[in-house]
Amino acid sequence: MSDSLQQLIDQMRTGHRLSLARLISKVENGDSERQELIKRLYPLSGSAEVWGITGPPGAGKSTLVDRLTADLRKKGKRVAIVAVDPSSPFTGGAILGDRIRMQQHTSDDGVFIRSLGTRGKHGGLSHATKEVVMVLDAAHFDVILVETAGVGQTELDILRLAHSVLVILVPESGDSIQVMKAGLMEIADVFVVNKADRPEADKLVKELVTMVGLSDHDEHTWLPPIQKTEAFRNVGVTEVIELMAKHQEHLAKTGKKDLKRREFLKSEVFDILVSRLSQSFDGQIQSRSGEDLLSELLQRKIDPYTVADRMSGVI
Amino acid sequence: MSDSLQQLIDQMRTGHRLSLARLISKVENGDSERQELIKRLYPLSGSAEVWGITGPPGAGKSTLVDRLTADLRKKGKRVAIVAVDPSSPFTGGAILGDRIRMQQHTSDDGVFIRSLGTRGKHGGLSHATKEVVMVLDAAHFDVILVETAGVGQTELDILRLAHSVLVILVPESGDSIQVMKAGLMEIADVFVVNKADRPEADKLVKELVTMVGLSDHDEHTWLPPIQKTEAFRNVGVTEVIELMAKHQEHLAKTGKKDLKRREFLKSEVFDILVSRLSQSFDGQIQSRSGEDLLSELLQRKIDPYTVADRMSGVI
Repeated sequence: MSDSLQQLIDQMRTGHRLSLARLISKVENGDSERQELIKRLYPLSGSAEVWGITGPPGAGKSTLVDRLTADLRKKGKRVAIVAVDPSSPFTGGAILGDRIRMQQHTSDDGVFIRSLGTRGKHGGLSHATKEVVMVLDAAHFDVILVETAGVGQTELDILRLAHSVLVILVPESGDSIQVMKAGLMEIADVFVVNKADRPEADKLVKELVTMVGLSDHDEHTWLPPIQKTEAFRNVGVTEVIELMAKHQEHLAKTGKKDLKRREFLKSEVFDILVSRLSQSFDGQIQSRSGEDLLSELLQRKIDPYTVADRMSGVI
Repeated sequence: MSDSLQQLIDQMRTGHRLSLARLISKVENGDSERQELIKRLYPLSGSAEVWGITGPPGAGKSTLVDRLTADLRKKGKRVAIVAVDPSSPFTGGAILGDRIRMQQHTSDDGVFIRSLGTRGKHGGLSHATKEVVMVLDAAHFDVILVETAGVGQTELDILRLAHSVLVILVPESGDSIQVMKAGLMEIADVFVVNKADRPEADKLVKELVTMVGLSDHDEHTWLPPIQKTEAFRNVGVTEVIELMAKHQEHLAKTGKKDLKRREFLKSEVFDILVSRLSQSFDGQIQSRSGEDLLSELLQRKIDPYTVADRMSGVI
């Protein structure tokens, strides 16, 4: 079993796409070999840049990702795209259609595209997403673009995964200020105002400039630059890539990249522990004594904290 | 300390609103007395009905909640409303404005409104939300309406919190079928088609009827009924309440209510364990040996699973 795993890894390392796809599936499906796989791949990872791309539905995320990919390819970079579908009943479904637009890249060996559901039992970007990124990193991709539908918890999770986060907005919603208040400043490393040919574009840019200027900062702070694009017509895309590169330089120079890596690894270890807790919990709660505890709890003879006390001893 | 806690509880039980608000804050802010509080309140809870109200932004959730509240009040029910703000940069902010509409109820002692952020470190509806509902339950509210902005993970979490889930839709998006495919069938106990005066309303109703009919079911399955409303003009609201009551009866009659309670309590215990794991993890990782492990991890001398192995022994 382990031998065939090593074979897959070796083939993946030489650029064999099917092997890569299989390894990713092992991670995504929580295969029994997953732990062994990550143990072997982790030492080989650590050189890729991970970019998060997020924004509200309809902002043009997929088109921008498409254009960024084409531009990065021209620069000789190998690009992997992870599209995270938040599995929301209200937003799901769009991503698959968007992917069709990416078909121009399917014959290109330097581009790899994978859609993932957020199957994480506990919400947000699943633990598996992080490990899929690790696999792609070990597979020699230079840049990994993680595209998330900008809803709910996923934006906060992208901070535990991406070195640089690009937030894409469009000048159509009147509530740009409200958007700002809600915490985007903490997330964005680069702002993109897409569909910049629309009349309200400059107004949105101005508002963003003001917001960025008002944020707490000193000379060491990275202030997110704002780039106008028309992704559809390929306008402003090269500039976006330059800004992302600048942010990467900033991270490297200030030592923030290592700090981020530290945080990412912490959350990876924590995810592993939670997933073990979850397994052990499921096992215990389905046992005879687990059922008894639950019955007492249902009858309100004991309370949830007392049940937790009794269970945590055995975990 | 405990004495003053008991005093707050006693006052809350006699209907003192400020005491209730304080107790909720203790839960929401993760106060040190939180565990003791829940231990005391849990035996007093268990009689409230918990309704989840979810749907896409702009569907009219808050207006419907407003009307449902007025109607339930006429029936003599005490109503608590928990509005969960998913803290999304892209959707946050709307809820506060919506709340202003609810001001008609503020002079009514039988209505209590509270907005909560989803501060849960691990996404979705936070652990605190469940415990806030528990507090309101112990405070003699008959119906607790939990309103969530319909994005991302929160819909799935509502299933671990609400006895009956109402999904509200509007006949404006052309993608009703896609919405269905994405898993709404698993969530909805009652469908509401709001803004039913719009021309496409009947089309949406028909599509929902078809979807419901096509779902896997036998004679014991609850098939979610579909109710047209114009919440703004108070049309169809009483009918919604009747349907929710029918669903509650169905749950009681079939024993499903107890099964749900069981699942809710399981997830409450699990949340407690994760929160303890989180505390213990933070403590360990900040210790000398934790820092050392993390450094080795950063240098790729060891892998995340090995770090987890070394830590889980001490947890």
